[in-house]
Amino acid sequence: MSTQAVTPQSVDFSAWYNEIVYKAGLCDLSPVRGCLIIKPYGYELWEAIKGGLDRRFKATGHQNAYFPLFIPESFLKREAEHVEGFSPELAVVTIAGGKELEEPLVVRPTSETIIMESFKNWIQSYRDLPLLINQWANVVRWELRTRPFLRTTEFLWQEGHTAHATFEEAEAETMQMLNVYADFAITDAAIPVVKGKKSDREKFAGALYTYTIEAMMGDKRALQSGTSHNLGQNFAKAFDIKFLDEANQLQNPWTTSWGLSTRMIGAIVMTHGDDKGLRLPPTVAPFQLVIVPIYKNDDEKSAVMEAVGRISQELLAANIRITVDKREGVSPGFKFNDWEMRGVPARLEIGPKDVANGTAALARRDVPGKEGKQFVPQEGIVARVQDLLKSIQANMLQQATVFRDANIHDVNSYDALKQVIEAGGWARGWWGGTGDDEARIKEETGATIRCFPFEQPGGNGVCFYSGAQAEQVALFARAY
Amino acid sequence: MSTQAVTPQSVDFSAWYNEIVYKAGLCDLSPVRGCLIIKPYGYELWEAIKGGLDRRFKATGHQNAYFPLFIPESFLKREAEHVEGFSPELAVVTIAGGKELEEPLVVRPTSETIIMESFKNWIQSYRDLPLLINQWANVVRWELRTRPFLRTTEFLWQEGHTAHATFEEAEAETMQMLNVYADFAITDAAIPVVKGKKSDREKFAGALYTYTIEAMMGDKRALQSGTSHNLGQNFAKAFDIKFLDEANQLQNPWTTSWGLSTRMIGAIVMTHGDDKGLRLPPTVAPFQLVIVPIYKNDDEKSAVMEAVGRISQELLAANIRITVDKREGVSPGFKFNDWEMRGVPARLEIGPKDVANGTAALARRDVPGKEGKQFVPQEGIVARVQDLLKSIQANMLQQATVFRDANIHDVNSYDALKQVIEAGGWARGWWGGTGDDEARIKEETGATIRCFPFEQPGGNGVCFYSGAQAEQVALFARAY
Repeated sequence: MSTQAVTPQSVDFSAWYNEIVYKAGLCDLSPVRGCLIIKPYGYELWEAIKGGLDRRFKATGHQNAYFPLFIPESFLKREAEHVEGFSPELAVVTIAGGKELEEPLVVRPTSETIIMESFKNWIQSYRDLPLLINQWANVVRWELRTRPFLRTTEFLWQEGHTAHATFEEAEAETMQMLNVYADFAITDAAIPVVKGKKSDREKFAGALYTYTIEAMMGDKRALQSGTSHNLGQNFAKAFDIKFLDEANQLQNPWTTSWGLSTRMIGAIVMTHGDDKGLRLPPTVAPFQLVIVPIYKNDDEKSAVMEAVGRISQELLAANIRITVDKREGVSPGFKFNDWEMRGVPARLEIGPKDVANGTAALARRDVPGKEGKQFVPQEGIVARVQDLLKSIQANMLQQATVFRDANIHDVNSYDALKQVIEAGGWARGWWGGTGDDEARIKEETGATIRCFPFEQPGGNGVCFYSGAQAEQVALFARAY
Repeated sequence: MSTQAVTPQSVDFSAWYNEIVYKAGLCDLSPVRGCLIIKPYGYELWEAIKGGLDRRFKATGHQNAYFPLFIPESFLKREAEHVEGFSPELAVVTIAGGKELEEPLVVRPTSETIIMESFKNWIQSYRDLPLLINQWANVVRWELRTRPFLRTTEFLWQEGHTAHATFEEAEAETMQMLNVYADFAITDAAIPVVKGKKSDREKFAGALYTYTIEAMMGDKRALQSGTSHNLGQNFAKAFDIKFLDEANQLQNPWTTSWGLSTRMIGAIVMTHGDDKGLRLPPTVAPFQLVIVPIYKNDDEKSAVMEAVGRISQELLAANIRITVDKREGVSPGFKFNDWEMRGVPARLEIGPKDVANGTAALARRDVPGKEGKQFVPQEGIVARVQDLLKSIQANMLQQATVFRDANIHDVNSYDALKQVIEAGGWARGWWGGTGDDEARIKEETGATIRCFPFEQPGGNGVCFYSGAQAEQVALFARAY
C-alpha cells in the first residue's frame, strides 16, 4: 500500500487507472505476459461480485458445474463463425506428459463447444429441457494489448450455458440473464448500465443475437460489462444435439450463453474512482467501514482501544464488514489517505475526547472533506452506520447516473457525432446504416455502436449517417 | 439418473466406485483424456467442501488471491527436487496467438514457483510476515492412469502458501492447517482421518516435511486426503526471497504449502457408500432431506401437496436443504431408490393418510429398511429433522471409526504385515528401515508407509522389517 500521489484523472485517465489498481492493492504485475495477479483485496471484491451473481443465478434455477480446461482443436472448428472469431487468440498445449499430443488441446477461450458435447449426451427428450448450467472458471485469450482486469490473457469469469425447446424460451432466458446482470450492476455495483442489443458486426462469434450491459467510465468511454447471447440452433446443429418433442418429433434445441468477468472490477474502479483512489459501493466493498483509533500515549491508547473493541463487536454482530487499523508508527492522516485510496466507504475515528464524550467522528468516502464528516454519539452506532452505508450506496448510483445522462448526446448528423465523440461522450442517433458504415465510422472516429438501447424514443427517424429510414436509435462511443 | 443395480462392493469395490460416481450424477466422462466433467450434483458437493474449508481458512487469518495459470518453464527448474518431481506430468503450451512461444509455458501442476516469485516482491521486512495466502484453482498433472475424482489430469483444489520469520512459526502453520483439514474431514465429512507425517520417500517434491490426513476407504485401502508441507527455506532460497529481521539482518523466510482437492469427493463416496449408492453426511450433502409426496388421484394429490408445501416452507425457513420430488409417472419406490443412490441423508414421505392424521414417515439413509423409518407427527417436524440430521452425522462418523479401528492391525514381523495387507487392512508396526526397505516392501506387497501417525504408543521398539531399534510406529497400507 502506498499513499504517493497518483496522476489525476483529468491529466490522464488511463494513467490514473493503471496506477490506482496497483496502489489500491487490487492486483500485481505477473511474470507471465498479459496475465494478472489478483491480490487479496482485489480477490475479495471478486468474491463479492461472485456472491451477488451466484445467488441470482441459483434463484433463477441455474446449477453450477465444471467442464474441462482443455478443448480438442477439432471441437472449435465445428461452428464456423465461432472458430473464426477465436482462432487468433488461442493458447495451445502441444506437449503433455513428455510427449507430443496427437491432437493439440486448446486452453478454453470460452466453453460453448466442450459444453455442447455434454449437452448432446444429457438431452434426449423435452423433459430434459430447459437445461440451465453455469460454470465459474478461468479462460485464456491471447490478447496483444492487455490492461489490468479489462483485457488480460487469462481472466476469471462465469459462463452460463442453457438449452431450450423453443426459440421463445431461449430468447426469454437470454433476456432474463441480461436483466440479472443489470440488476447486479445497478443494485450491487451502483453502475447505471444501459441495456441493449449489439449490432450484427459486434455480436458474439456464432450467436444469433447478443445483448449487452454498457457502462460509462469516468472518462466517458464505454465498457461492455456483461453479455447474453441467443445462439439460436447454431451450436445445437454443429454438435448434433437433438431432443424428442412432445409430439415425438426430433428437434434441435435452442441454446444461450452469457458471461461476466473480472472486467467488472475494472468497471467499478473506473465508474466510481476519483483522484484520491477507489470508491467502492458498500454492497460489494471488502470492508464497509474502517475504524481508526487516535491516541498519543499508552493511557489514551488503552481507553480508546477499549471503546474501539466494544464498538467493533457491535458492528460485527450486525454483519457490517469492518477492519480496525491498528498499525503503530503511522499517523492518523496517513491512515485516512490510505483507506481513501482503497475506497472503503465509511470511516470511524475514535480519540480520547470521543471516549470522554461517548462520541465518534463518522466520515463518508463519497462526500469529500468536512462536509462528509459528522460527529455522532456512540450509542446507536449500528443503526447510524447501516443508514450511512445505504445512503452512500444510493448516492454513488445517483452520481454515476447523473454523470452518464449528462454525457449522452442526441446527434442528427455525422458531424455532430464526431463532435460528441471528440469531446468525450456517447452519441445517440437514428441508425439505418450497414456494417460497412459502422466500420468506416469506427476507423474515422474510434467509436463503435455500443448497442441499440432497449429504451427507444419510439416511432421512426432518419439515419444520421446514411439518410436511410431508421427504426431505432443506436448508442455510439469509444470503448475499452 | 438410473436405478439399475450396481456391482456390489463385495464383488468388486473398484467397479462399484466407477459405476456409482456416474449413476449418482456426480460426474460424467469427458472427451478429453483423463479430464472429468463435474455435474451439478458433484459440484454442489464440492461447493459444500469449499465452503467448509474457506470459512476455516479465513478464521485462521488467510486471504484468497489468484495467480496465473501459466508458469514459465524456467521457474519450475529453480527448485531441483521440485522440477524432478513434476516434470513427467506437465502439460505445456508452446503456441499462443498463432505463434510459437519463445519460452514454453507450463500449465500449473501446483503454484509454489509462480507464487514465490510474487512473495519475493511482497516481502521486505519482518513486518510483512507472516504472509498467509490461499488460492482456489484448477491444476493439471498429466497422469497416465486416471480415475474419477481420485486422479484426473485436471482437478480443482485449493493451495495455501505462507511465509514466516522462523522455522518454528512455519512448522506451527503447517500443523495448524493439517488440523484444519482433519477438523473438516472429521466434523463435516464424517471421515475419521489419521493425522501423521510422511516418510522422506513419500514427501512432497521440495519439502522438508510433509504431513497428511489418511482416510480408510470401504475396501480398506488408504486415501491421502490432504497434505500440509513445511518447505523450510528451500523455495525462499531458490527464489531469492529475503526479509530484514527485527535485528536488521537479511534472512530467508520459511515457507509452507498445503492442499486439498476434489479428491475429497472420492473420499466421501468410498468412505460412506454402500451397495445402494452414496451416503452423504448431512453437513456437506447438497440436499439434506428429500420429500416424496404419495398419492393416487388428483384429490389426494392436492391435499398431499398442500401439506408438502407447508412443511417445505417450515424446513426451508430453518435453513434445512431440501428438495421435493414432484416427478409424475414414476412410482414412490422408484423415487426412494433414486434418492438412496444419490445418498440424501433423510427422506420424508407424505401420503393421504398422513394428511388425515397429521403425520409423516421419516426415513434415514444410514440405517437401512424398516429399522431406519419412523412415523412422526407433522407438528414439531423442524426440530425432529434437525435432531435426525445430527444423529445421522454422528452415526456415520461412528460407523467409519469402528470400521477403521477394526481394520488397523499391529504387526511384529514382515510376514504378519504381508498377511494384513493381503487380507485388506492397515498394518501398524515399529519402523526403523530405510527408503530402500520401503521401496522393497512396496514392490512385494503393494503397501506404502501412509504416515508415521501422531498418535504413537510411546517408548521404543524393534523394527518389524530390519530388526533395527525404532522410535516410532508407521502405518502401512495399499493406497489409491
